[in-house]
Amino acid sequence: MAVGDFPFPLMNPVAGVRLGTASAAIKAAGRQDVVLLEVALGSQVSGVFTQNAFCAAPVNVCKAHMSSVDTRYLLINSGNANACTGEEGLADAYASCAELARLTGVSTEQVLPYSTGVIGVRLPMVRLLSALPNAVENLAEDGWAAAAQGIMTTDTRPKGASEQFVHDGVTVTVTGISKGSGMICPNMATMLGYIATDAKVSKGLLDQLSKQAANRSFNRITVDGDTSTNDSCMLIATGQAGLPEICAAEGALYEKLFDALIRVHTLLAQSIVGDGEGATKFVTVNVEGGQNEGECLEVAYSVAQSPLVKTALFASDPNWGRIVAAIGYAKVDSLDAERVKVWLDDILIVENGGCAASYTEAAGQAVMDRESITIRIDLGRGDSRECIWTTDLSHDYIKINAEYRS
Amino acid sequence: MAVGDFPFPLMNPVAGVRLGTASAAIKAAGRQDVVLLEVALGSQVSGVFTQNAFCAAPVNVCKAHMSSVDTRYLLINSGNANACTGEEGLADAYASCAELARLTGVSTEQVLPYSTGVIGVRLPMVRLLSALPNAVENLAEDGWAAAAQGIMTTDTRPKGASEQFVHDGVTVTVTGISKGSGMICPNMATMLGYIATDAKVSKGLLDQLSKQAANRSFNRITVDGDTSTNDSCMLIATGQAGLPEICAAEGALYEKLFDALIRVHTLLAQSIVGDGEGATKFVTVNVEGGQNEGECLEVAYSVAQSPLVKTALFASDPNWGRIVAAIGYAKVDSLDAERVKVWLDDILIVENGGCAASYTEAAGQAVMDRESITIRIDLGRGDSRECIWTTDLSHDYIKINAEYRS
Repeated sequence: MAVGDFPFPLMNPVAGVRLGTASAAIKAAGRQDVVLLEVALGSQVSGVFTQNAFCAAPVNVCKAHMSSVDTRYLLINSGNANACTGEEGLADAYASCAELARLTGVSTEQVLPYSTGVIGVRLPMVRLLSALPNAVENLAEDGWAAAAQGIMTTDTRPKGASEQFVHDGVTVTVTGISKGSGMICPNMATMLGYIATDAKVSKGLLDQLSKQAANRSFNRITVDGDTSTNDSCMLIATGQAGLPEICAAEGALYEKLFDALIRVHTLLAQSIVGDGEGATKFVTVNVEGGQNEGECLEVAYSVAQSPLVKTALFASDPNWGRIVAAIGYAKVDSLDAERVKVWLDDILIVENGGCAASYTEAAGQAVMDRESITIRIDLGRGDSRECIWTTDLSHDYIKINAEYRS
Repeated sequence: MAVGDFPFPLMNPVAGVRLGTASAAIKAAGRQDVVLLEVALGSQVSGVFTQNAFCAAPVNVCKAHMSSVDTRYLLINSGNANACTGEEGLADAYASCAELARLTGVSTEQVLPYSTGVIGVRLPMVRLLSALPNAVENLAEDGWAAAAQGIMTTDTRPKGASEQFVHDGVTVTVTGISKGSGMICPNMATMLGYIATDAKVSKGLLDQLSKQAANRSFNRITVDGDTSTNDSCMLIATGQAGLPEICAAEGALYEKLFDALIRVHTLLAQSIVGDGEGATKFVTVNVEGGQNEGECLEVAYSVAQSPLVKTALFASDPNWGRIVAAIGYAKVDSLDAERVKVWLDDILIVENGGCAASYTEAAGQAVMDRESITIRIDLGRGDSRECIWTTDLSHDYIKINAEYRS
């Protein structure tokens, strides 16, 4: 099941990026499960990674390789996470890079590996390595849509976003794909994202942009609160649009690029929420009036991750008592319940420590019947605000996760 | 649905405690939903309460009343939580106490009120007050079993525990009841507990014992991670066994009482887990080898509250990858994944950062097929250990919580 309006868009190619796919029969036979991104010489590549202590072999290899030489290839397989696979898993990740390096004439360190899927099972190396030539052969600038399909696991639809803006008469493109549906939570949970632009950006600034954009998008979504061992979000700048290099966070070109990056990242993150396992509601949780960002997020996640709130959302039940209870147990010092206000979309439901005088069940029900709902919470104690996105908790979530070995 | 072997035991009366029940038609007509505990003059009463910022009216009244005079009555209603009911709710809680005080000839402050059930709806005061004389009339020392029934909400079975020990030829009794099934989490979540002993204990020591016992029992269980607005766990010492007063945490009598209190509290807490909403598994999570209690609990709750681990437990799937992922995202500084070991009952499943060499799916499956399962985790970095209890996450959890207005 999936929710919300996230049609797969027209994907503008990014000069300097080619994509190829192949099948290694890791997922069901015939489905594409190997995806290759080639980035042109002179490109910069940045990334943010899972903070899980059991981070997977490819994540460790990826970080090591990025610290040395310029990246030329990103090699992704879906269907198997190569996580919790010990020394052998590490060797497999290196061997995949080495074989692709051999095929393409680059060094092993110029290849970054990514895996997503089942945990604790070794990669089928023979099949994986045999599929690489095919992926190399069909590298093409218009391979984004096929790549979006190729990185899917339990996803029910491919996820893409693409934006363009004009600066000094030059069109700049930002295009990206993502995957993820369950186990989605802040800090890159079972989520892969690949976003590329043909703007020219210095390595230092690209690192900063990658962190900022991920923080305002992929780190603001939650489906079930679990974070995975494999998640990575990569940002590539090829510099082939022909504009001057951006080295600092200032100026019109920087501002336009920043906005486009945030929009693409946000749409890719929201697409993951919309494809949340068993999701029937797309829920925005806005917390304002906090003393700082931290307490706004604490309250937002407390509400968004409450199983009781999530099941009420699934039932389209305007059960504001559960929302209030979840706000109340968020770890916020000296929260004054009397000052807290809560709205469902534009309907005020809670004030003065209880149900709002103006509230009617009919008005609450009308909001709850919608597919997209915003829960807005004013803590009444400051000027900070934060926004996260989540889903409900449905029968299908249990069905998917009790039956799928991830 | 309920799981585990928690038969309702023989409830030994506690000299100095009488219990009465009545129906105010707050729950389904005919079900008992008003419970009265009378404690004899000279008794001491201690309690621990929810830490939810939106704590309910009766919790506030209870705390205020306990700070002044000696308690004589505990008045409980089920079916309505009198939470998020603003000034009116507070007035209702006071009015209930005042009416019972009038009927029994005590002061209003000598009555402590408790409510559990639907949030955000006012108490049906006329029906509630009309039921009080009936509850007073049937006060009896053997009323424990009826009281256990009377405090139930979504519980599928009453919860009781009773122990006796002999000291200097005198039999001392500890008897208690509890309720709770969903929204169960540390810090007293939608949980009520009433434990009484005929030992004589000073107020200071009883306060300390109440905190310690709750911390090792009701604060070590989780069903869905939600904490409620109403939870209270009360400990009563009537002193009518005829033994000397215990004023300090030392001596044989203290040790025996302490052990009996811990056993009764633990059994009452475990009974709540066993009756967890939709539960099909009773799961013990043991974390050892931690640097301190805090990190052991962090890991234990991370695993126990992971929806992915809980759905795997429901599916009887030995999906150790999900357990490892949940350990990995627990907020523990510099956890070395290589040193972590995980067992399902006596089967080693994880070591050296991956699946244990000796592990077989058949062995893991054999454990997972059991109704009671222990997940044991050794962090390999210290001597601290902690233990908590939880359940799986099933279709029925969604069904119950999507359909019940709590």
